[in-house]
Amino acid sequence: MTLQPERTVAELRELRELTATVDGAQRICWTDTWAQSRSWLHAKLTELPVEVETDEAGNLWATLRGESERAVVIGGHMDSVPDGGWLDGCLDTLAGLESLRRIAAEGTPPVTVRLVDWADEEGARFGRSLLGSSACSGTLDVDEVRGLTDRSGATLPDALREHGVDIDRMKDCGSQLDGAAAYLELHIEQGPVLERLGLPLGAVLGTFGVERHLIRFKGQTAHSGSTPMDDRRDAFAGAARLSLEVHEHTRRTGQGAVSTTGSVVNKPGIVTAVAGVCEMTLDQRHLNADVLAGELAYAKEAASRIATEERLEVEWEELWTIAPIPFDERLIGLADEAIVEIAGASHRLPSGPLHDAAEVARADVPTVMLFAQSLRGLSHTKEEDTKPEHIELSVMALDRLASKTIDLVAAL
Amino acid sequence: MTLQPERTVAELRELRELTATVDGAQRICWTDTWAQSRSWLHAKLTELPVEVETDEAGNLWATLRGESERAVVIGGHMDSVPDGGWLDGCLDTLAGLESLRRIAAEGTPPVTVRLVDWADEEGARFGRSLLGSSACSGTLDVDEVRGLTDRSGATLPDALREHGVDIDRMKDCGSQLDGAAAYLELHIEQGPVLERLGLPLGAVLGTFGVERHLIRFKGQTAHSGSTPMDDRRDAFAGAARLSLEVHEHTRRTGQGAVSTTGSVVNKPGIVTAVAGVCEMTLDQRHLNADVLAGELAYAKEAASRIATEERLEVEWEELWTIAPIPFDERLIGLADEAIVEIAGASHRLPSGPLHDAAEVARADVPTVMLFAQSLRGLSHTKEEDTKPEHIELSVMALDRLASKTIDLVAAL
Repeated sequence: MTLQPERTVAELRELRELTATVDGAQRICWTDTWAQSRSWLHAKLTELPVEVETDEAGNLWATLRGESERAVVIGGHMDSVPDGGWLDGCLDTLAGLESLRRIAAEGTPPVTVRLVDWADEEGARFGRSLLGSSACSGTLDVDEVRGLTDRSGATLPDALREHGVDIDRMKDCGSQLDGAAAYLELHIEQGPVLERLGLPLGAVLGTFGVERHLIRFKGQTAHSGSTPMDDRRDAFAGAARLSLEVHEHTRRTGQGAVSTTGSVVNKPGIVTAVAGVCEMTLDQRHLNADVLAGELAYAKEAASRIATEERLEVEWEELWTIAPIPFDERLIGLADEAIVEIAGASHRLPSGPLHDAAEVARADVPTVMLFAQSLRGLSHTKEEDTKPEHIELSVMALDRLASKTIDLVAAL
Repeated sequence: MTLQPERTVAELRELRELTATVDGAQRICWTDTWAQSRSWLHAKLTELPVEVETDEAGNLWATLRGESERAVVIGGHMDSVPDGGWLDGCLDTLAGLESLRRIAAEGTPPVTVRLVDWADEEGARFGRSLLGSSACSGTLDVDEVRGLTDRSGATLPDALREHGVDIDRMKDCGSQLDGAAAYLELHIEQGPVLERLGLPLGAVLGTFGVERHLIRFKGQTAHSGSTPMDDRRDAFAGAARLSLEVHEHTRRTGQGAVSTTGSVVNKPGIVTAVAGVCEMTLDQRHLNADVLAGELAYAKEAASRIATEERLEVEWEELWTIAPIPFDERLIGLADEAIVEIAGASHRLPSGPLHDAAEVARADVPTVMLFAQSLRGLSHTKEEDTKPEHIELSVMALDRLASKTIDLVAAL
């Protein structure tokens, strides 16, 4: 049996019929619709000569035993955000399924090949993304998530229990990575780079480090009519200047660095008042820790200088940070080769969003990802899309990469 | 009986005891607390040889008949915003009361002297300020306010009816201005100008014209991690640049012009997304219509230029505009004289906020206002304050101005 990439496109459409409404995909983890998508996947896996199990964190594993216990793992996630797209997460799992079918059809492989469907990559219901993969990698702090609740007030431990997961045992699944010699993941890019370059596929260098902060400028609330311009201490002026200066600095830095001021809240925030307080978020990302640190240092210096010039106070609150996670150089090379063989040309690019692959890499398993071109860079919306011919190329490239990686691991 | 300005300070404190909580004044119009403050005022008026009546719009009038029917009117408003200050509105009414006592004690004046306590200057409950005075001036469009509701869903017509006002008859009160030859109003400045100059009192040149608009920049929502800087169309960048450029232009214009961008709302407004839409309000004010038009024209030109440069679309929505309302030159001169006689030095300044006086001026009654110094420019908050000695000077200046105006009107 040979690879049938068109079957993956058909299965993605089948899954959409099953789990999407007119508003988009509804496979939110720890819900009935997600469980339904898992059963659908499970049925397809049982047609193969694989062992299927769900681990202590709710991750689903299918294992094709090879001549060696050393394993090549292919991963994805069936869960989606609410009103999500038809590809984010499930393309990875279903492309891996197709590759597993091809490998299984060829008999016992030289090394073990495993497919993992991670639980709760999106964190859409409880706000903690990468839940299943971080339980497996060991970076999850259970006590930090124990108190999480969804909008209806349901707690994470109760929701997990309904799906057979005991929160106090979920990190036991770490043993699943014993013997893992390589981890591969295919994902849509969720950005515009490959589309702009006219390329269907790219090899991913790693996931960006992230510095995420809240910056609070404090001035003096004042009446818009009775306060002369020179008497004002306009907190919004501080935020506006900082946003523009940081963006300009990040543009000059280049190398794919990004800075975003996505949330800006004026207080009191009414038409007749100069803002006394302005809270702005800053999200900075880069693949190189030193470059990222330089971006943050510039922002802090600029904020202090602007605050002085505008007669404001400024405070910083760290919201979240993560170090850059570079992928495996050798696997990046194989990914490039596979893409060139399938699509004629490759491009290396970092991943702005985090992925389960980052967690696996943190567990010191050599890791790489492939990106498939996204149309208009849209994701986490029903408008998310990729051309069917590019989806097929991505399945072929993942399968080619799996072959190369199996050969590499077999030769270790 | 001579003027007792210290009595006004005492009565303001008495009113505060009666109608404020720990959070500030609660004399919101068309509520029981407001009605209570009115009864308290009514009781004080009935001790004087005046006729007291409430007109069709709920404005309270006290009339001291003079030798002529031509009238000098002194006005204020007992209503406050929620959690308001102890001076905004009621200082005017109570200073007028004190002046009326002094004039009445001296026997029949040469012209009629009237005190009016306007209803619903603040518009705090239904969002329409200057309600009573605009009904009287004739500028109120009843059909525009008929559908207004408060936060609990109560309608304006029902609330008015509970206080004896028939919304369809409220403009009949316009006849109250028949014979009005001058209108005087004292108010706290609500801004920092007099405090900065070290002056207790100022003569008001008129109320600013206002151009109030919503500006909507439209770009493209994009993921903060996966979208390179050069691929972004950040709607917030348009708003930030426009705010800074407009403020700089208004500063250069000088002459007391003000521009404020008090409300800024990013959409989706989350830390991980470049803003696809940013809605910003612009509130511009000046006493001269041509200067104000120039400020607005600059803002529109700048918004278009910035939108082009940032690859955004920009839309404008007019929220509210009003032309500048200059006060009467002759009365401004008298106000200056009165202030100099009482406090040694005067200063002429425009009013950024609107006042009932603007409505009376629109009805072609010669009008002027006095401002008393505000501490720290604060108003519409319980921190609103003015030194007791400045309150007393303001009562004396209003009374002196009333005398001069009575003489002027008597000589007409």
